[in-house]
Amino acid sequence: MYKSVLCDLSGVVYQGQTLLPGAGSALNKLRSKGLALRFITNTTRKTKSDIVANLRAMGLTCEPDEVFAPAQAARTWLEHRACTPHLLVHPALEIEFDTGAASEMGAVVIGDAGEAFTYANLNRAFRVLNDGAPLLALADNRYFRDSDGALSLDAGPFVKALEFATGTTATVLGKPSREFFELALAATGSSLEQAVMIGDDAETDVAGALRAGVGAALLVRTGKYQSGDETRNDPSPTAIVDNLEAAAAWIVNAID
Amino acid sequence: MYKSVLCDLSGVVYQGQTLLPGAGSALNKLRSKGLALRFITNTTRKTKSDIVANLRAMGLTCEPDEVFAPAQAARTWLEHRACTPHLLVHPALEIEFDTGAASEMGAVVIGDAGEAFTYANLNRAFRVLNDGAPLLALADNRYFRDSDGALSLDAGPFVKALEFATGTTATVLGKPSREFFELALAATGSSLEQAVMIGDDAETDVAGALRAGVGAALLVRTGKYQSGDETRNDPSPTAIVDNLEAAAAWIVNAID
Repeated sequence: MYKSVLCDLSGVVYQGQTLLPGAGSALNKLRSKGLALRFITNTTRKTKSDIVANLRAMGLTCEPDEVFAPAQAARTWLEHRACTPHLLVHPALEIEFDTGAASEMGAVVIGDAGEAFTYANLNRAFRVLNDGAPLLALADNRYFRDSDGALSLDAGPFVKALEFATGTTATVLGKPSREFFELALAATGSSLEQAVMIGDDAETDVAGALRAGVGAALLVRTGKYQSGDETRNDPSPTAIVDNLEAAAAWIVNAID
Repeated sequence: MYKSVLCDLSGVVYQGQTLLPGAGSALNKLRSKGLALRFITNTTRKTKSDIVANLRAMGLTCEPDEVFAPAQAARTWLEHRACTPHLLVHPALEIEFDTGAASEMGAVVIGDAGEAFTYANLNRAFRVLNDGAPLLALADNRYFRDSDGALSLDAGPFVKALEFATGTTATVLGKPSREFFELALAATGSSLEQAVMIGDDAETDVAGALRAGVGAALLVRTGKYQSGDETRNDPSPTAIVDNLEAAAAWIVNAID
């Protein structure tokens, strides 16, 4: 039944710079069963090549084609419409948009800009939107578990701020957009229904994936998970499991 | 019928540091007809004494009791609940909250903080809210006309950002809260129905005042007014007039 596994990264595979216990063997177990693995992340602070290098530095097997991040989807979106991006993203991600192309059509691209979310930068983006530019959100997550262990504001609250200020609605390119899940699965040959999503974000990774048509979505109790998350969203997770290791066991049991 | 006039300041009486044409004589005309005047503003970048001094410097007659700004309402709110404010306001406004009182109960107070809306400050407020503190918004306007003539982000978008991040709803203390209009009118002896609001913000000043029960609300075509504003909100303005002078003429005509 299930042919592919869509796996979130931060809070599921690793936390900060540390691999979560059992994550490596869990991923090997899934690969050994012939399942296609896709790492899909809404992290908008790292380039795709940084993500791949980071996973390999932790000792994991990872091919570039297995990693999907919103900047890739945004690049495609901008190229199709010949739009020049007005970036409100993390400085580390700016290089992903350095195409050299310039057009009169502009689009505001917003990600998890972190410290780059200054009033001046937000106000500049607001003015570009007021002139009619579309708003492209790399992600709209509410928060993430920061390196200090506490929750920090993600891109979503700032997307909502600009939507409220301008009366426009953002096009969201990362999870839980159906297009993003489909893009990640394209080369695996499996449909949305044949995929299982594993994530620590009950809203975006789990309820969002199920609404987009993903076959099953497992909520792990690691990362940003907080007690009660499983009841705060509709639809509920297909299953709630302790960690990635338990998620892999659930999937192997389901396909055996 | 009408006994009081509630008049917005920025964009109605003055723009930046300049009195709008005819504003002084319009206010004198209203006073000469025996109408009680109240200046009510959602500006959260100036203390009440700064506002009074500013109006007097422009040559206008103004008593402290005639000026109502959200910080006054917030002070009352915090005192009643013995809450210590965690401030996300413009530095110039911090002195209004310098009561010296400290309690274990905290509340996040958000205003038009301008450059003080840094990621670090917003994130600190987010964490205080996550610990269960209530969110108190001095105002929730979307934008204002800045000193450079263009529109800039007001407090509202940042209120929405924190509401979205935490799943809480802010208590809004400035216009268009009914309590704020009532507080402004308290010493005049007139009811909400006996008051006319004059403003350049079709949403907060006009539709908001009418929803709160104010008798009439006039939209002026100065300040942040943009063509079409009169049709974007429900209820519609009682009348749309060119400026404060025309608003005064409309009121004098209505009571004569």
